[in-house]
Amino acid sequence: MNSFGKRFCITTFGESHGKALGCIVDGVPAGLKIDEAFIQSELDRRKPGKSKLETARKEDDKVEILSGTFEGFSTGTPIMMVIFNGNQKSRDYDNVKELFRPGHADFTYFHKYGIRDYRGGGRSSARETAARVAGGAIAKLMLKTLGIEIKSGLCEVDGIKAKSYDFEHAKSSLLYALDKNAEGKQEEAILSAKKQHDSVGGVVLTIATGVPIGLGEPLYYKLDAILAEAMMGINASKGVEIGDGVLSTSLKGSQNNDGITPNGFKTNHSGGILGGISNGDDIVVKTHFKPTPSIFQEQETVNTKNEAIKFELKGRHDPCVAIRGSIVCEAMMALVLADMTLLNIGKKMEHLEKIYKK
Amino acid sequence: MNSFGKRFCITTFGESHGKALGCIVDGVPAGLKIDEAFIQSELDRRKPGKSKLETARKEDDKVEILSGTFEGFSTGTPIMMVIFNGNQKSRDYDNVKELFRPGHADFTYFHKYGIRDYRGGGRSSARETAARVAGGAIAKLMLKTLGIEIKSGLCEVDGIKAKSYDFEHAKSSLLYALDKNAEGKQEEAILSAKKQHDSVGGVVLTIATGVPIGLGEPLYYKLDAILAEAMMGINASKGVEIGDGVLSTSLKGSQNNDGITPNGFKTNHSGGILGGISNGDDIVVKTHFKPTPSIFQEQETVNTKNEAIKFELKGRHDPCVAIRGSIVCEAMMALVLADMTLLNIGKKMEHLEKIYKK
Amino acid sequence: MNSFGKRFCITTFGESHGKALGCIVDGVPAGLKIDEAFIQSELDRRKPGKSKLETARKEDDKVEILSGTFEGFSTGTPIMMVIFNGNQKSRDYDNVKELFRPGHADFTYFHKYGIRDYRGGGRSSARETAARVAGGAIAKLMLKTLGIEIKSGLCEVDGIKAKSYDFEHAKSSLLYALDKNAEGKQEEAILSAKKQHDSVGGVVLTIATGVPIGLGEPLYYKLDAILAEAMMGINASKGVEIGDGVLSTSLKGSQNNDGITPNGFKTNHSGGILGGISNGDDIVVKTHFKPTPSIFQEQETVNTKNEAIKFELKGRHDPCVAIRGSIVCEAMMALVLADMTLLNIGKKMEHLEKIYKK
Amino acid sequence: MNSFGKRFCITTFGESHGKALGCIVDGVPAGLKIDEAFIQSELDRRKPGKSKLETARKEDDKVEILSGTFEGFSTGTPIMMVIFNGNQKSRDYDNVKELFRPGHADFTYFHKYGIRDYRGGGRSSARETAARVAGGAIAKLMLKTLGIEIKSGLCEVDGIKAKSYDFEHAKSSLLYALDKNAEGKQEEAILSAKKQHDSVGGVVLTIATGVPIGLGEPLYYKLDAILAEAMMGINASKGVEIGDGVLSTSLKGSQNNDGITPNGFKTNHSGGILGGISNGDDIVVKTHFKPTPSIFQEQETVNTKNEAIKFELKGRHDPCVAIRGSIVCEAMMALVLADMTLLNIGKKMEHLEKIYKK
Repeated sequence: MNSFGKRFCITTFGESHGKALGCIVDGVPAGLKIDEAFIQSELDRRKPGKSKLETARKEDDKVEILSGTFEGFSTGTPIMMVIFNGNQKSRDYDNVKELFRPGHADFTYFHKYGIRDYRGGGRSSARETAARVAGGAIAKLMLKTLGIEIKSGLCEVDGIKAKSYDFEHAKSSLLYALDKNAEGKQEEAILSAKKQHDSVGGVVLTIATGVPIGLGEPLYYKLDAILAEAMMGINASKGVEIGDGVLSTSLKGSQNNDGITPNGFKTNHSGGILGGISNGDDIVVKTHFKPTPSIFQEQETVNTKNEAIKFELKGRHDPCVAIRGSIVCEAMMALVLADMTLLNIGKKMEHLEKIYKK
Repeated sequence: MNSFGKRFCITTFGESHGKALGCIVDGVPAGLKIDEAFIQSELDRRKPGKSKLETARKEDDKVEILSGTFEGFSTGTPIMMVIFNGNQKSRDYDNVKELFRPGHADFTYFHKYGIRDYRGGGRSSARETAARVAGGAIAKLMLKTLGIEIKSGLCEVDGIKAKSYDFEHAKSSLLYALDKNAEGKQEEAILSAKKQHDSVGGVVLTIATGVPIGLGEPLYYKLDAILAEAMMGINASKGVEIGDGVLSTSLKGSQNNDGITPNGFKTNHSGGILGGISNGDDIVVKTHFKPTPSIFQEQETVNTKNEAIKFELKGRHDPCVAIRGSIVCEAMMALVLADMTLLNIGKKMEHLEKIYKK
Repeated sequence: MNSFGKRFCITTFGESHGKALGCIVDGVPAGLKIDEAFIQSELDRRKPGKSKLETARKEDDKVEILSGTFEGFSTGTPIMMVIFNGNQKSRDYDNVKELFRPGHADFTYFHKYGIRDYRGGGRSSARETAARVAGGAIAKLMLKTLGIEIKSGLCEVDGIKAKSYDFEHAKSSLLYALDKNAEGKQEEAILSAKKQHDSVGGVVLTIATGVPIGLGEPLYYKLDAILAEAMMGINASKGVEIGDGVLSTSLKGSQNNDGITPNGFKTNHSGGILGGISNGDDIVVKTHFKPTPSIFQEQETVNTKNEAIKFELKGRHDPCVAIRGSIVCEAMMALVLADMTLLNIGKKMEHLEKIYKK
Repeated sequence: MNSFGKRFCITTFGESHGKALGCIVDGVPAGLKIDEAFIQSELDRRKPGKSKLETARKEDDKVEILSGTFEGFSTGTPIMMVIFNGNQKSRDYDNVKELFRPGHADFTYFHKYGIRDYRGGGRSSARETAARVAGGAIAKLMLKTLGIEIKSGLCEVDGIKAKSYDFEHAKSSLLYALDKNAEGKQEEAILSAKKQHDSVGGVVLTIATGVPIGLGEPLYYKLDAILAEAMMGINASKGVEIGDGVLSTSLKGSQNNDGITPNGFKTNHSGGILGGISNGDDIVVKTHFKPTPSIFQEQETVNTKNEAIKFELKGRHDPCVAIRGSIVCEAMMALVLADMTLLNIGKKMEHLEKIYKK
């Protein structure tokens, strides 16, 4: 239940304000060069407090590998990565101890488990995504050797849409904006919401290039289905689209079909997936993030005795979680593709011959 | 790879034009009354040829249970259900034998497996959803004993949106329309596309009522993530939304948070799920179906030798797959909820006491 | 719970006296020639009534493939095989309907599920092993293309041990005896027990030759561990040994270690497995079958109301289930090795290069 | 591949001479009191260097919980336990760096993965069993609340068999001997082998009392099959017996069947399992450990260039691994039973009513 993937599999642990969090990555093929600096750089991209658009909360997120590598390479055994929690201001959470914050998992964890670690949301905190990013970094290292690359950025903030996509620009943008013409307005919307103690939603576009034909296992481990699971499972995600997605609903079949030529597909409405299997084109996924529920206005809720109360949240929170969601989407896509890459091997008899015949 | 669910698990088999298709349902608790007439009635709701809005192709879809029941009740052993294929006009497919239909899985199956059963799309055919509906029917029987019910209908066709939702009306509507005021225009859009040898998309709204608090297993088997996987895995699905979904992206946190009162949630923007766990409110999911790729206009594609060709599809196909998709969405939601219901047991120590203490 | 294997996976269904039994085989690589005559011949080896050493009960065991093949080859989709039950004399079982046969699963199924199909043991009947043999036959076809072969025979009956192993002789022996010098006494022991309305135990030796180095996934899917699971899961099995097994307990390390030479191992005490991974030598497994509990003497037991009763079983049963257990052991070993063969691919980065690099 | 269990699941990581080892325990019901002192005491029972019968190597094995508990109770989230490696004399292993120790996993890991952490056997070292013991300790805590207890001891050393079983005596015995009359000779055999730079085998008897009827999931997650997998997967294990096991092979059915009375079974030849399901009697399992391959005599082997060499092992090793195997067997049985306890819930419709009906 805390594992993701069948062959390339992460199992994560840890709470927001516990001693540590991290993951075990199982299934990494032996002989992969493990670039620790790259893993750390991915965590640095995710960590909060990099700009005024993010929470001011500092998390150091220093990752350490405890097993599974030898002389810089993976050995085929489980790779364990841990991030010790430093700056734990649990006192900040005393005011939420006895109540359920609207839009948060407080209510459901309490009722499901009968006990909850209320400090910073405990296990339900987006802080756990650091473990995903660490695992995703190793997936990226593996995929890179096959020529697969993953990119992301924000294509919408508070309803303000990007009109063109520039993944290079997104890298240096404070909000990972894909369209520098929309960026200003998007930034403004975030800061305006922040000033009003409110929050905004956003949409992350994630793509993979260089993906071979054949990834995805029909019928119940299809590439698109598992990408949907991966993205919908990220904190605050409420919608996932593949390729043209929601838009394709209003198109005619004659407009939506991607014609095929000897050099490939003429268009990519499908987002690179047909019948749940990659078709060689770019994989295109959009993930919709709701406005973060952590707002600093008075809200109605109940306490753990089910008494009506009003409360105002304190603390430090992102006004737009979609921004940092961008790197998490990349990580999840990397994990899915790494898994699918391994699962696809052995689907044809000729694969067995290539590996076993002398 | 052909199984769905961890505790309540279906494994399906069969091709569109093979001898038979069906599924094994594993994990059904012993002692459930298996109402075979209900199972058949669900298959009848799915089967094609019921109106001019659907393909004229007839499929009898007579289901037979071969194991797992005794004197009308489940025994806890696997329930096997088979549907023998009758009307197999494989000749219809001779013209697609050597080519890849745009928008279909022909291309990807051929490249992934090196061999494909081209007759009616083989395994990739939506005909396989009959097995899902059979399995889903048993899930519904189990859920009903707990007071959980599932309903669905079309909330959008070819861009024409429902303004209100009437699930009772949907039941008797030829296109499972949720809004009888929109129904006429939606029907017109389908028939108009059909006349032009084209197809249209649509959106299915599926809800579950009576769902207890606590279903969903964080962090990697969240209720919303698995619903997304389930729905995105249905043929022709390109987008999934939970609750307000895509719309929530443009809302402020103060608008989107569902306030909590001693009597429950004030609103249901969340679609009944917080932190991946059901909150006791209705579960609300939207599934976006692209226009069926089977259109009867000339299209560009390549043959299996990768030569450019033009072709025009023959045969009988739905002009709007979303219609029959509706009952498949219900089945998938039922399978997910049945699984989650079983998975949730044992999450608290008090559950163990209830079951084992004498 | 009714599935075995992770990549090469069978899911079985069916009861002894239900309509049918069979299995879905998932994960068979596409492009394997499916020799249906071979599959049937394997079932014929398992079926009862071939000699006076076995039950006189006739089971036709005609297998039919319903999906997953096209023009004689596997397509990568699930292969469904069904055996319809013919000769169902359920009346034979009226006398066991209300009681629990000692040594049988009647008691535990009744208490676990609260309902049981008492006819012929229902799901707990060894009849289900027909589905394993069908699935194992496909595994053997796949393994054969890699040069892996599986053989078996009885190395002990009623305490009478084989002194040498001749797998060729076993093939034509009525009791699959490995040692023709012991065969006579072993046969005598079986017939003598049968005459006294009793039964005897036996030990099956199963070996695999041509197994490449590297099969088995440490630490929790080790080759020896999964073979033990596979063999202990066969009806009436009570002990499993790998290589020298129980005997090695009395040896010194200096006697038991297999020295290594440039041409391979000097001895094979280990049974071809080190650290849970195949070492290139023959895989050697012994499976101990208890005497069948179906004896025709008066026995003490209780009925479903927990009242003490005495009863005498009627019907037709094997006096030595180990005989037909032999072919089931082969099937289980084939399933394990097929699974391990697929799982091992992708364990090194060079595998990925071989498959994906152009 | 590094996870064990379906509902109560451990995932382990770590190498003998890496930075740390440990496990994530997933599926622990919320609300279990986590007695850290008990967990540590279990690790202390396993740790080496407690007597002259064991290796003189010291391992501190101080366990630390990093997640999954709150105010002393489990929260339903993954419990991560880590043991940092202290005394790492990796230099000791320089002499095995380029060769394969007979009877060890060196050869197979090298060939499977193409790279190996040779220090102390790396991942294949029995040191990993510390993680199993930590996980097993939590399983024991859960089982204890249901009245299930697990005991073990040595019933055979170097061919010297116990004639009676006294689990209380075993607790205080240096070699966990079950029979104090055999203990002296057994100890002598170990010390004599040690003096000769050799090693001996042994057999561990493990039993569980208080087990409810109904644990075990037929047909492919049977209690006996999974116990066999669990025990055969322990380092150096070569044979597993359930109940009378190997002995039952020589019995007649009339001797081996356990008669049933209104007060339970008359005998327990079956080892408490019928049809793969617990019958309410004690669960009885024997595990056969080969003599440890680590002996200090000259042996023939090859180096990594496949050249014949002779070598003599240096270092500190147990002369009889079965001794410390005893506590590992307990841990594995606890893990299996905890998993089966959770899996069994939901197998009857009445379970659902007990949990969900208001």
